[in-house]
Amino acid sequence: MKAVVPQASLLEALQHVVRAVPTSSPLPVMSGMHLHFRRERLTLSASNGILSIRADIPLPSGTNRTQEGSLVVPARYFADIVRKLSAPQVELGLTEPFTLLIRAGGGFYRLCGADPDLFPEQPASGASPWLLTLPNALLKSLIRQVAFAASASDTRPLLTGVWCRCDGGRLILTATDSIRFASGSSLLPPERASGSFEAVIPAKGLNELARLLHDEQGETAIAAHDGHIVFSTANLTLGCALLHGSYPPVDKLVPRSFAAEVTVGKLPMLQAIERVTLLAGEGCVVHLRMMPAAGNDLSRQNRSGTDNGHDGTSIISGERGTIIELLSRSAEIGDVREEILVEQSNGEPLTISFNGKYMADILRAMEGTAVRLRFTSKLAPLAAEPAEPHPSALYLLTPIRTAI
Amino acid sequence: MKAVVPQASLLEALQHVVRAVPTSSPLPVMSGMHLHFRRERLTLSASNGILSIRADIPLPSGTNRTQEGSLVVPARYFADIVRKLSAPQVELGLTEPFTLLIRAGGGFYRLCGADPDLFPEQPASGASPWLLTLPNALLKSLIRQVAFAASASDTRPLLTGVWCRCDGGRLILTATDSIRFASGSSLLPPERASGSFEAVIPAKGLNELARLLHDEQGETAIAAHDGHIVFSTANLTLGCALLHGSYPPVDKLVPRSFAAEVTVGKLPMLQAIERVTLLAGEGCVVHLRMMPAAGNDLSRQNRSGTDNGHDGTSIISGERGTIIELLSRSAEIGDVREEILVEQSNGEPLTISFNGKYMADILRAMEGTAVRLRFTSKLAPLAAEPAEPHPSALYLLTPIRTAI
Repeated sequence: MKAVVPQASLLEALQHVVRAVPTSSPLPVMSGMHLHFRRERLTLSASNGILSIRADIPLPSGTNRTQEGSLVVPARYFADIVRKLSAPQVELGLTEPFTLLIRAGGGFYRLCGADPDLFPEQPASGASPWLLTLPNALLKSLIRQVAFAASASDTRPLLTGVWCRCDGGRLILTATDSIRFASGSSLLPPERASGSFEAVIPAKGLNELARLLHDEQGETAIAAHDGHIVFSTANLTLGCALLHGSYPPVDKLVPRSFAAEVTVGKLPMLQAIERVTLLAGEGCVVHLRMMPAAGNDLSRQNRSGTDNGHDGTSIISGERGTIIELLSRSAEIGDVREEILVEQSNGEPLTISFNGKYMADILRAMEGTAVRLRFTSKLAPLAAEPAEPHPSALYLLTPIRTAI
Repeated sequence: MKAVVPQASLLEALQHVVRAVPTSSPLPVMSGMHLHFRRERLTLSASNGILSIRADIPLPSGTNRTQEGSLVVPARYFADIVRKLSAPQVELGLTEPFTLLIRAGGGFYRLCGADPDLFPEQPASGASPWLLTLPNALLKSLIRQVAFAASASDTRPLLTGVWCRCDGGRLILTATDSIRFASGSSLLPPERASGSFEAVIPAKGLNELARLLHDEQGETAIAAHDGHIVFSTANLTLGCALLHGSYPPVDKLVPRSFAAEVTVGKLPMLQAIERVTLLAGEGCVVHLRMMPAAGNDLSRQNRSGTDNGHDGTSIISGERGTIIELLSRSAEIGDVREEILVEQSNGEPLTISFNGKYMADILRAMEGTAVRLRFTSKLAPLAAEPAEPHPSALYLLTPIRTAI
């Protein structure tokens, strides 16, 4: 049994599949990679119990003397060897007892494998009760906008997932870790909008999927069955166990009315938040203050030596309108004040404090060049969304109570 | 006191100097960065006791209202803030009590500093008993060829250094960790070859110096005094405490006669060593065998299913001459055989075993496209050098005793 494959395609497939290999496993065979030789293709697959990834490498007909056969090999050794190979073609062979032969250039490798029957079953991507096909670019963009907000802690397992709903011709993804909340949606083309579906998909699985979808032109077929969801695109398949339970009714969190609203450039806001967070200490507490832009450079300079340096006047000279002031302070290290000119504002000036890292995550995930921030009170979640007529995403961030 | 500097030059200087800041220090002021404002320049410096780095930023005359003044600021906070600034110009000011003011764009920072008098003295680069000026490219190349071989362990502190000698118009650098040995030398232009000097310089200091020397066109002035060596180039100065003691007479290790010699391409040899080392287990034991190239592809295929797969015949088909065979084996994982066609060979075929990682380090450090390997016996150090008429470097590697 023998197959000749280009080193580049083998390496690409390996680098995708190896991400599903568990770093440590009580069962050695689980930290292996499953290889399945067929006449027309070689299939690599791996699984860590939650996530499984499978890659097909088509074999040119005629050049390969492959009958069917399979084995499990030590995944990281296999990936490391293929990564270092300098020959353009790699010859893979299978011999008894469960040994993989690799030949490339002047090198000849034998990797001790294991019985493929001990390897866990892979979820099939065959017929299923629910099937949807989406453009890769859309799927990737929705994941990127939402999945970051899922919880990283296992205290509430359901919050480590992304709540995906498909109903009424719209696909909605929602995630929250109970401090921040992200929701993104997209209208589906009418021919794709049949049937309804709801599931909580582990955010880790979706983030891996977004990595796999580098062909933005392609499409991904989605099938769900037996508590699993399977995404198939080109020669790659990603399977993921769904999370059980009913997702909390987070839609109720979205405030219906706001006391104030500002629109600012997304990049200046993100960069200022990142800088201010540097001095915000461990709690990352950043204070935001809406205030009228007044004062000028001269008055500020004269006062810069005063005790707190934050004297309530703008340092953006000559501007009139509203500014956002971001403040933070780290004991014994220093403090910072950043000012951002507001493009548009409504409502009463206010002060609110929040986690600067979380706000930066939201701004990084958001699409568009400007962001609309809406405030209810200093204790209610602030809302952020792209400043477009029909924003496709909404973000909420719970404030931090402070003395200021 | 105030200075306006371009963000890019400030960041570049900071990134050099911050490398000398200790990650943790019993004295907080030691993990700070010293800033010295003068009318015509701003000087940043840091020191970890062994190594000190100083950068000068020239200030454009007229635009800066700077009198003399200095303070010590938290180094990493300062570097992080400057890295994140998006404004092209940064205004730095100094205020009481030891506070650094940073203003850029709409941002205004105050960093709490410390008394500069508590900061350790920097070695001066003034008049000194020994002075040599070298082109940066030459200095960098010598360091890169030799310093990697110094010991990383403090068991024999002197071996963590590089033995530098300047005598008879030649500069010689030597390093060893007692398993491997590297030596590189360069003839000095006659006008630079006056005087003789000898010192053991910490390899860490030289590696930092090589990083600083990115301007390959420039020159570096070297001065030694009071147990310190000081390297000065453009606006950067690196000072380093010398190691005390007399370096072991390692020159005696160099074998005078050899039983065999082969010349191989450096890149194919390096790549093969790296691959073979992947399966060499924790000890990185790689076996090298010189042997005649014979046999052909067909005979090998028939035998590839035999017990050890290493049947003494070449897999480079149709070639006649000598080959180098590299072998390694990792229990329960697998084994590998790599073959490299030899460009030139002399002497008796032999077998020798060595640490594959160490051999790869040697090949990576070596200049030129081909390497000449010389062997005395399987128990004596093997010698490697660039296959040139007058090689500028010599490497030795102590073999590992094995049963094979």
